[in-house]
Amino acid sequence: MTAVQPMTAAHTDRELAEPTLRGWLGTVGLDVEYVRAEGNTIYRLAEDGSEVAVLDLAGGYGSLLLGHNHPTVVARAQELLAAGTPIHAQFSRHPYANDVANRLNRIIRRELGEDEAFATIFANTGAEAIEAAIKHAELERGFRARDLLAGIEANLATTVTSVAPSAYEKAGSVPEEGLAGLLTAIAAHNAAVAARPPVFVTLEGGFHGKLAGSVQLTHNADYRTPFSALAAQARFVPLDQPGAVKDMVDGERASVLDIVVEGGEVRVVEHDFPLIAAFVVEPIQGEGGIRVVSAELAAEIQEAAASVGAPVVVDEIQSGMGRSGAFLASTLIGLRGDYYTLAKSLGGGVAKASVLLVRESRYRPEFELVHSSTFAKDAFSCHIASTVLELLESEDGRAYRKAAELGERLTAVLEGVRADYPDVVVDVRGKGLMLGLEFAAQDTATSEAIRVNAPFLGYAIAGYLLQAHDIRTFPTASAVTTLRFEPSVLLTEEEIGRLDRALRGAAEILRTQPEHGFTA
Amino acid sequence: MTAVQPMTAAHTDRELAEPTLRGWLGTVGLDVEYVRAEGNTIYRLAEDGSEVAVLDLAGGYGSLLLGHNHPTVVARAQELLAAGTPIHAQFSRHPYANDVANRLNRIIRRELGEDEAFATIFANTGAEAIEAAIKHAELERGFRARDLLAGIEANLATTVTSVAPSAYEKAGSVPEEGLAGLLTAIAAHNAAVAARPPVFVTLEGGFHGKLAGSVQLTHNADYRTPFSALAAQARFVPLDQPGAVKDMVDGERASVLDIVVEGGEVRVVEHDFPLIAAFVVEPIQGEGGIRVVSAELAAEIQEAAASVGAPVVVDEIQSGMGRSGAFLASTLIGLRGDYYTLAKSLGGGVAKASVLLVRESRYRPEFELVHSSTFAKDAFSCHIASTVLELLESEDGRAYRKAAELGERLTAVLEGVRADYPDVVVDVRGKGLMLGLEFAAQDTATSEAIRVNAPFLGYAIAGYLLQAHDIRTFPTASAVTTLRFEPSVLLTEEEIGRLDRALRGAAEILRTQPEHGFTA
Repeated sequence: MTAVQPMTAAHTDRELAEPTLRGWLGTVGLDVEYVRAEGNTIYRLAEDGSEVAVLDLAGGYGSLLLGHNHPTVVARAQELLAAGTPIHAQFSRHPYANDVANRLNRIIRRELGEDEAFATIFANTGAEAIEAAIKHAELERGFRARDLLAGIEANLATTVTSVAPSAYEKAGSVPEEGLAGLLTAIAAHNAAVAARPPVFVTLEGGFHGKLAGSVQLTHNADYRTPFSALAAQARFVPLDQPGAVKDMVDGERASVLDIVVEGGEVRVVEHDFPLIAAFVVEPIQGEGGIRVVSAELAAEIQEAAASVGAPVVVDEIQSGMGRSGAFLASTLIGLRGDYYTLAKSLGGGVAKASVLLVRESRYRPEFELVHSSTFAKDAFSCHIASTVLELLESEDGRAYRKAAELGERLTAVLEGVRADYPDVVVDVRGKGLMLGLEFAAQDTATSEAIRVNAPFLGYAIAGYLLQAHDIRTFPTASAVTTLRFEPSVLLTEEEIGRLDRALRGAAEILRTQPEHGFTA
Repeated sequence: MTAVQPMTAAHTDRELAEPTLRGWLGTVGLDVEYVRAEGNTIYRLAEDGSEVAVLDLAGGYGSLLLGHNHPTVVARAQELLAAGTPIHAQFSRHPYANDVANRLNRIIRRELGEDEAFATIFANTGAEAIEAAIKHAELERGFRARDLLAGIEANLATTVTSVAPSAYEKAGSVPEEGLAGLLTAIAAHNAAVAARPPVFVTLEGGFHGKLAGSVQLTHNADYRTPFSALAAQARFVPLDQPGAVKDMVDGERASVLDIVVEGGEVRVVEHDFPLIAAFVVEPIQGEGGIRVVSAELAAEIQEAAASVGAPVVVDEIQSGMGRSGAFLASTLIGLRGDYYTLAKSLGGGVAKASVLLVRESRYRPEFELVHSSTFAKDAFSCHIASTVLELLESEDGRAYRKAAELGERLTAVLEGVRADYPDVVVDVRGKGLMLGLEFAAQDTATSEAIRVNAPFLGYAIAGYLLQAHDIRTFPTASAVTTLRFEPSVLLTEEEIGRLDRALRGAAEILRTQPEHGFTA
């Protein structure tokens, strides 16, 4: 197998595809070209044109639980192409999409120990699945609000004209204006409440995508705030503050006014209005530094969501598909979702596929008539997703067991580095093959070469690991002192050993603070 | 070549992937299963398990300008898979992405007759490219607003204390409060203006996607209004009302206040504030009924955008890639974009690829650091996109010439049907291989079977064309009396003849209004 050659001498062209990013990657030694990949190995092109094997622990940002170019996935893709599969067949019967939906249902219901079905909406990327979740939650909220307001409207058409004195104060109207004034005040109050924008409750450190809607659920201010005028805002709850979810929800309550007739008099009552559209949670935060949500926080979210009737959207885009050792990482912390989003490894490293799963009891079939995508639900990505699910489930779920076992092994190695370098390694976090190693910040490092890299420390360490040890990984995007380790289930003991040595090399540099920093 | 068999008997599963949509397709005869495709032919599975050849004029909603499974594209995909191409290599050098960017630049600059380069941002779908455009436009607007407000802030730190009497009125403060009151009033006014949400100006009938941000630029109220609380709103301008763009822009003007010192006195002046983030336009509206924007409207948009300094985003997702006979349909109407979005056929019917191109003079390199996608800019879709561009450009742009020639031929046939059935066919529109045939509404049809289908007339006609003539097409999504015709450049005279006969069959039914409607 040799690398595919570009069709023309692209290298002589001017850099027009994100030149700034490329230049920046170059400053930390990450601007390398990869030309071939298999399993956990990705080959970079050396200056002499030869291939250098690199151990890939970034794993496509969590997309490669089965490794690069898994032979079964690739063979399936080849078979689909050779057979002339109709990739674009929008608005027809899609048994292959239904096959993915049913496979996912079987796995998820088994893991949750429940019988309820999940309706399945197809998209192309993780961010698109989150956008679909946002939209479905808002559609649901809209129906709930409409039903509530329609019921009130019917009540307001009362023929009873005697008004209880307390009613005026509750509605903010005056007795002089009688029932008519009361009804007007109620209508105005309710209209103002109904016009408030929807609220999404999510977590500090969370990452849910970078499209106009989803980026507002992403906590990182650099990604989010330049675009905050574009979409509905989220409220961010800290991970480590018991009671914070409830406080947040209590602060976002709003009620609409209604009337009841009691003892022949019109009285004013209040109903909670559904301002909160959804709670959106990653069970293990990926870009936020590989932080596992506690079972206590999960319970608080569950309770708060139930108290306002809003769905819990469990974002398993990075943590799901078996990476944590369970198909859904959320089951490990007892978090029960109303919606689930899956992407990344669902495409097997070859296709672009994502899904939104919605509990049947909350599902609004109207959604199918207002949401679609030219590229989604296609035969190619659906067949690949089915193949991936079959591989994960094969040998009685061997992949899940491997993820758990290898995760424990890898955790032990990371803990070993931490134990030997407590001065420079401050934490090991994660579950299964979604692990993070947090380094001490270097803002006051004695080595100037290290200090100048402090604002993007993890990238500097990643550059060192790549250049000195042929290991590819990155920091988590929003917590750059934490390195991510998301290899495939093919990880070997030899590879774990290589990482151990490499991390000790990095830790030694941070401890000894050489003048040249990470570059030898 | 035989159809790929599902890995398990999916047909016995419960329908969980959009069952409502499937049920609805069944009512108009569109719930068929396609099992193989090549060129303009897609094969459906008959009840006896045999394959029935169907002429596909829906063309993947505009994604198949080169036809289903073009042999060169498929061969390239197979080659990439066989070579173990590293599909997931985020945060490294991407010469293949740069190759796509440079190819697009060469084509677009040639067509525009300009030298300016376009920076290229990669995404996965058309809707994602629009989201990127929205975000980039807002980033641009934010920088302009910040620069403007920073300049004002510097001026407000004046040491001159003498205030011109006219200044108070302009700022809405009173002389009694002197300079301090004046400055407070100016700051409050400016803060209120700066807090106003961004405005996107677009066209009635426009379609720009269905993600949370992009769906607000999509005119169809069914798609848009259930989600209008989720994202910034657009203003919609009619296509056929000269002066409407300017009126809209004049209605969206806002100014911030500043001070100048003249003759030793502080005076108040106004500056336009950038409220409008972008103008977003399809040169040929796809889902809105295949409506070509006039050169006059294009000029009005261009002028209005220049007057407020906002970019013109030309959405060529459906019209671009040569479908109109030019690479960019916008060049045919003299519309010059600051941004372009491309998708659909860019992926060659095999990959999911899209790009946002931004004129270098407006490009904000900061965007690269805040926007990204796990799946985007991957080697697979980039290499496929390069192959597609090479195919389009081959033989001195034969594909563009074919699209134009076949479009003329097809238009003549559609015009022929219209001439013979002026009572039931009301319009023929479009350019190249993006054509629409509008039927007379059937809300008052004498045949009840036809009348009940009137709210989704085009789907009923599409069901007839499929069942009676083995022709696949659909109405445009937001104008369901218009049928779309978007075949590939492989269209033959025989296929055009088949369509001619089939459309005459449909027109005859509408004319004669048989009791059984479209079902024989």
